[in-house]
Amino acid sequence: MTYTLILLRHGQSEWNQLNLFTGWVDVRLSDQGKAEAQRGGELLAEAGILPDILHTSVLSRAIQTADIALDAADRLWIPVKRSWRLNERHYGALQGKDKAQTLEEFGGEQFMLWRRSFDVPPPPLDDASEFSQVNDPRYAGIDGEIPRTESLSLVIDRMLPYWHSDIVPDLQAGKTVLVTAHGNSLRGLVKHLDGISDADIAELNIPTGIPLVYRLDENLQPLGPGEYLDPEAAAAGAAAVAAQGAKK
Amino acid sequence: MTYTLILLRHGQSEWNQLNLFTGWVDVRLSDQGKAEAQRGGELLAEAGILPDILHTSVLSRAIQTADIALDAADRLWIPVKRSWRLNERHYGALQGKDKAQTLEEFGGEQFMLWRRSFDVPPPPLDDASEFSQVNDPRYAGIDGEIPRTESLSLVIDRMLPYWHSDIVPDLQAGKTVLVTAHGNSLRGLVKHLDGISDADIAELNIPTGIPLVYRLDENLQPLGPGEYLDPEAAAAGAAAVAAQGAKK
Repeated sequence: MTYTLILLRHGQSEWNQLNLFTGWVDVRLSDQGKAEAQRGGELLAEAGILPDILHTSVLSRAIQTADIALDAADRLWIPVKRSWRLNERHYGALQGKDKAQTLEEFGGEQFMLWRRSFDVPPPPLDDASEFSQVNDPRYAGIDGEIPRTESLSLVIDRMLPYWHSDIVPDLQAGKTVLVTAHGNSLRGLVKHLDGISDADIAELNIPTGIPLVYRLDENLQPLGPGEYLDPEAAAAGAAAVAAQGAKK
Repeated sequence: MTYTLILLRHGQSEWNQLNLFTGWVDVRLSDQGKAEAQRGGELLAEAGILPDILHTSVLSRAIQTADIALDAADRLWIPVKRSWRLNERHYGALQGKDKAQTLEEFGGEQFMLWRRSFDVPPPPLDDASEFSQVNDPRYAGIDGEIPRTESLSLVIDRMLPYWHSDIVPDLQAGKTVLVTAHGNSLRGLVKHLDGISDADIAELNIPTGIPLVYRLDENLQPLGPGEYLDPEAAAAGAAAVAAQGAKK
């Protein structure tokens, strides 16, 4: 038995476009992001890799991406599960800040530490901030667990329980699973699947809107590297992600 | 404890616009239908009646309506359940046929019998028809239960089990429930809630895109008539539904 897992990072959001740190702030897709999601769905349809079930975060940009991609692949009707555990990394006090300004203010070393270190979270976000989620009704059920900041390590700590409890059983039931989520929750999942070290994960960038397909064995071990359905666009997209922040 | 139930009929579809019988054929919303869904979501937000959970059919026009309305109400993130039991009535051999032509071909009496009688289904649809759903993967799990035609009575027979098994428990958990579905599955539900007779249900028309809100007591009995969030538009919309088929 081979399991099929599709990972899809949401397309460009309005804040990606403005070069702001987003994290848990619930911004929508830009028009470019919608076009990326459409293309992602078309790639799935062309490859004949059709999801039987969808898992998304509770952030609108991932949900919009899934809705648009599934419409393009004529799979709007599949079952859906959503979880905050698939959310983007909480960017703490950086949420809402301009990336280029942050780079200038704190310097390249601190900037890269916050962006790419495995276990150094940014300073926590004040609950009184307009960019805080402590009063957002979508997190009413998780109360004490709402983060104020996260490192990639902390993202993995809250994401993996959902992988084991909800995604793995769907794979084991023989379903082709689509996970539509975010740069860092997907980096965490790829780190887990491919056994990437804490140091090496810094170099991994996942491009937006291009389905990344894993074939897994019965022990959930990848039968080979994950494959992007449009490898050339994926390489260009990953390079663009790596260059973020440098933009003025 | 008072329960809140919101019923929302999908906006105009591409085939509503063309005046064709649709049933289980999976057509998409027209631009007008998308605008109706957007308005439906804005009405929910303005009234402050915000769903905690969504139930939809597995037909794309109901799913699109829910996605657009929930986006407008900033509730894209709520949990979703889908079921074929909320689908539109299967229109049998009429699926894909022009309503005005059907009226002309079979006469007003037969036409109204198929459209509005309680328990007279149209002739069954041939499995070889391009408008059949017997090979549609979304129904792979229900096999022997895929209808070839349905009366309103048969719609109620397959819809009510889902009401009891999936929707009622969400209401009893105190959740505000949104059901986004179709003219006939929603007529069936309203018939059940309001105790409308088999004869009188013929006169009930549900307009598209306008949320219909019920407050229910602990025994799931309505505390009053369902209320449309835009009563004037609802009256005009219901009259327009009643006049369908007469259009040339």
